[in-house]
Amino acid sequence: MIPTANAASAPYTVGDHLVDRLAELGVDRVFGVPGDYSLRLLDHVVAHPQVRWTGCATELGAGYAADGYGRLRGMAALCTTFGVGELSAVNAVAGSYAEHVPVVHVVGAPALARQAEHRPLHHTLGDGAFGHFTAAHADITCARAVLGPGTAVAEIDRVLTEVRDRRLPGYLLVPADVAELSVEPAAHPLPPPCDSTDPEVLDAFAAAAGRLLEDAGSTDRVAVLAGLLVHRFGAADALAGLLAAGPVPHATTPWAKSLLDETAPGFCGTYAGAAGSTERTRAVVEDAAALVLAGVQFTDLNSGLFTQRITRARTIELGPRSAGVGSAVFAPLELSAALAALQPLVASLRPGPLPDTAEPDDQDDDPDDAPLTQAALWRETSAALRAGDVVLADQGTSFYGMAPHRLPAGVTFVGQPLWASIGYTLPALLGAGTAAPGRRGVLLIGDGAAQMTVQELGTVLRERLPALVVVVDNDGYTVERAIHGADQPYNDIPRWDWTALPALFGGGTRARAVRVSTVGALRRAHADAAADPGGFTLVQAVVPRDDVPDLLATLTRALGVPAPESARAADRRPSGR
Amino acid sequence: MIPTANAASAPYTVGDHLVDRLAELGVDRVFGVPGDYSLRLLDHVVAHPQVRWTGCATELGAGYAADGYGRLRGMAALCTTFGVGELSAVNAVAGSYAEHVPVVHVVGAPALARQAEHRPLHHTLGDGAFGHFTAAHADITCARAVLGPGTAVAEIDRVLTEVRDRRLPGYLLVPADVAELSVEPAAHPLPPPCDSTDPEVLDAFAAAAGRLLEDAGSTDRVAVLAGLLVHRFGAADALAGLLAAGPVPHATTPWAKSLLDETAPGFCGTYAGAAGSTERTRAVVEDAAALVLAGVQFTDLNSGLFTQRITRARTIELGPRSAGVGSAVFAPLELSAALAALQPLVASLRPGPLPDTAEPDDQDDDPDDAPLTQAALWRETSAALRAGDVVLADQGTSFYGMAPHRLPAGVTFVGQPLWASIGYTLPALLGAGTAAPGRRGVLLIGDGAAQMTVQELGTVLRERLPALVVVVDNDGYTVERAIHGADQPYNDIPRWDWTALPALFGGGTRARAVRVSTVGALRRAHADAAADPGGFTLVQAVVPRDDVPDLLATLTRALGVPAPESARAADRRPSGR
Repeated sequence: MIPTANAASAPYTVGDHLVDRLAELGVDRVFGVPGDYSLRLLDHVVAHPQVRWTGCATELGAGYAADGYGRLRGMAALCTTFGVGELSAVNAVAGSYAEHVPVVHVVGAPALARQAEHRPLHHTLGDGAFGHFTAAHADITCARAVLGPGTAVAEIDRVLTEVRDRRLPGYLLVPADVAELSVEPAAHPLPPPCDSTDPEVLDAFAAAAGRLLEDAGSTDRVAVLAGLLVHRFGAADALAGLLAAGPVPHATTPWAKSLLDETAPGFCGTYAGAAGSTERTRAVVEDAAALVLAGVQFTDLNSGLFTQRITRARTIELGPRSAGVGSAVFAPLELSAALAALQPLVASLRPGPLPDTAEPDDQDDDPDDAPLTQAALWRETSAALRAGDVVLADQGTSFYGMAPHRLPAGVTFVGQPLWASIGYTLPALLGAGTAAPGRRGVLLIGDGAAQMTVQELGTVLRERLPALVVVVDNDGYTVERAIHGADQPYNDIPRWDWTALPALFGGGTRARAVRVSTVGALRRAHADAAADPGGFTLVQAVVPRDDVPDLLATLTRALGVPAPESARAADRRPSGR
Repeated sequence: MIPTANAASAPYTVGDHLVDRLAELGVDRVFGVPGDYSLRLLDHVVAHPQVRWTGCATELGAGYAADGYGRLRGMAALCTTFGVGELSAVNAVAGSYAEHVPVVHVVGAPALARQAEHRPLHHTLGDGAFGHFTAAHADITCARAVLGPGTAVAEIDRVLTEVRDRRLPGYLLVPADVAELSVEPAAHPLPPPCDSTDPEVLDAFAAAAGRLLEDAGSTDRVAVLAGLLVHRFGAADALAGLLAAGPVPHATTPWAKSLLDETAPGFCGTYAGAAGSTERTRAVVEDAAALVLAGVQFTDLNSGLFTQRITRARTIELGPRSAGVGSAVFAPLELSAALAALQPLVASLRPGPLPDTAEPDDQDDDPDDAPLTQAALWRETSAALRAGDVVLADQGTSFYGMAPHRLPAGVTFVGQPLWASIGYTLPALLGAGTAAPGRRGVLLIGDGAAQMTVQELGTVLRERLPALVVVVDNDGYTVERAIHGADQPYNDIPRWDWTALPALFGGGTRARAVRVSTVGALRRAHADAAADPGGFTLVQAVVPRDDVPDLLATLTRALGVPAPESARAADRRPSGR
């Protein structure tokens, strides 16, 4: 008899163990696309009392959705089928790796009994070999396992533990018959994360940091720049404690936007070097006598193309498991422990005044009949946000248009400036909405990006998630036009009528869509959406083709290709010519 | 001064050499999605007098489109950007590898001058390393190169030559600055393909094959089963010569459908073992006294799950570069040379009668008001085909529904039964239509599959390609329901109203869409499409949820998961428990 998970007398299997462990880690949803090698495995997902299946239209979409879920929940699961499915998702998994999102990629594979015959099965290269696609995951996951009899349970636990602790994706290849093997239910939960901090290292760090802070003298001469890794490594509470201990002036990088309350006293804006910060924000960060960099990674698009001006001698730099004070490095030392150690040191400083960080009121005096521009679009959209919204801003004019605007308290902001895969945020809306039931998702995305992953709006509609979708209709890849080839045909895209989307995707009466090309029409659309916060509203926002937000214009001017000579200089290999 | 390809005085660059070589190989179209690392490279594509750029909505779609183009033209090119772009296309490239389609994947990478700084650039993992994604192409391409100064031209020529001769994909990583380096225009074309055949081997093969054929005695006791590799290795003319030399009875595998004229005398149908052939076709192939297997690869879905009954002692098996007669192997020996050698041997046999292979007339007596079924859908659609059509049948009910029907002469049939990635055929319609201007594309695809890659219909509409699209609306993944979990939620998909698609994708007045659920409505839709052969018609064909073509029902019954015990038996490693 073949066991089925639904039967009351069903044996407990490897598949059940996997789903139980996911539930133990707080995962209540598995995203993916089924395939014949994964169908039975999905029976165990469907049968689990705490875990649900969300089928997506594509594997790339499912991977992005899992990433969005993982950003809000701290752990996510994706399930695809062998070859065709898993390879369609690798871009998403690589993005999760680059952006430190723990996603477990579970892949259903042909049964070991079939693999042993080495025949050309479908979804293979036809050569009787079954290891080709695991290799494609080697550089984009922190742990991998091909499950086999006897070791499956231990391997599942090892991979899940690494994913949880390293905050990076993992890969589990599950042959269909291995998933059905009987095992004992786990007697114990997974081992708790171990705190790597060495107490002696912590003391030495605190002493060195204390000297630097004492030299600064008062809290107004200290500043904190907070980065994404504070969020990823669960150090947000420790950071809040440090900020309150001063209070000290603070800012975030664009990547970490919404990590801190942007309406709080002492918040000085978004810092991204010379190309992505106001003069006031730059002064707070760059001129501090003692600067704490908390979980900051300066990537090109998170630093105004490496224009940050940070003086190492005045800087305390905290990474996930090490810290630096000036040129001295302290490890192993966890981020939370380092932040906690700084708290009493800052509290003992002489109190200084917080800078005046109120932003000047946005110039909101466009008449209703003014044609819509990028500037007006992001200003009006920022003004329409409400506490609880989850804002997803696609890499492009949406991300850079929103970055300078202060968010209301209680808004979560999701972007992807390192991996920067356009179209990511649309399925991430599905994942985020699933992770945070009841919160409205606000998707801001260009037309070219939205065409990449549009079908997952069908999934968003099927799941009846509350959403406001703003599609920036500017007739092509505007960011690329700004970089190179403004009028080249490769930056053109087919022009769509986005208002027809709810009809195609079966949106029913719950979904509305409207095209706006004036400031007044956008205001009305936002007001209508606000009046129906549980509904689905799509706004096709028409703006001029070559209009780009100021911040992006600064960035793209510098993103050209260096002159040919530099390639020769960079490569020292002897020429073959 | 930075050179631009458009300027009259522009220097000749590595990028120009690459595009010139593609044109030399007959490639007049490059499919892809632009990215900032590839924009300048695309300038060389756009500027070329014989080559055009076709921007796609997604990289996966572009990869599938290039594959479809390559199947009709024998060579294709795909261009994506670093990381995010290339990884989104790897499923398509792997499919081209499995199905022997020569596609060159050109990837625009950060300039070497930037790579040398090892900084965290966008579209990377943030670790300053740039080799991660080339590794993902290792198992799915026959040749790869990372272009550098001095070696770029030689490496381009090496990779393109291997792709051309091995009929498999290749990979070229092109740093943005290397593309702009000045080089001399090539003085010579690429070296011609070399014929590997050893004349002594050819003589020995002919002698052995002659003995086997003589034992058979007359042409009616000989049969030829033709497979896909005849097409891929350019041996179709040699095969036609052999068939005419008898004439001898012949059949194709499903994978090779349309390789032979299905209306010609001696054509005995599609052979796929016990689960995909009529009794008459099986008898012709399996009972032949001498069977020539020409370029046949028996994969699971191309052989009725390995139910072929082939007796080696009576078989002459021809591969791309080797041949077998009974148990003896002859190599190196090219497929065309082996087929040519068989021709006089067959011609010298005693002529025998061809079997009566006329198919009984399809039962075409459904009244117009009969509800549409899978059987009626494929019967009526087959009847609506015209010479010149390119039929693309997605893996699923479309492929198995069409496989048993005889095609009119002059129809090209495209399927993907080994890689079997659902959604493939929709972008392949774009590629095929581009490769064969003026020929109508007929896309047959399930709703779940069409949701995977739907956005490329926007590209098909923009390119104004003539197309008939039949979307099988049966409310989910019907093939998977037939295999396992008929009522499980993972086989459900969102229900779309496909008739709204032309409005969303800007189809204009050239595009029509209609929903049909009776045989008569389908007939009218086909008639309307036939009356406008240059237009775009989408037919949403509603059929019962669990209705599957007979052939597919036979296959899926056998595709379950083996009982758990077999997994233990298959794995001989000591158990860790």
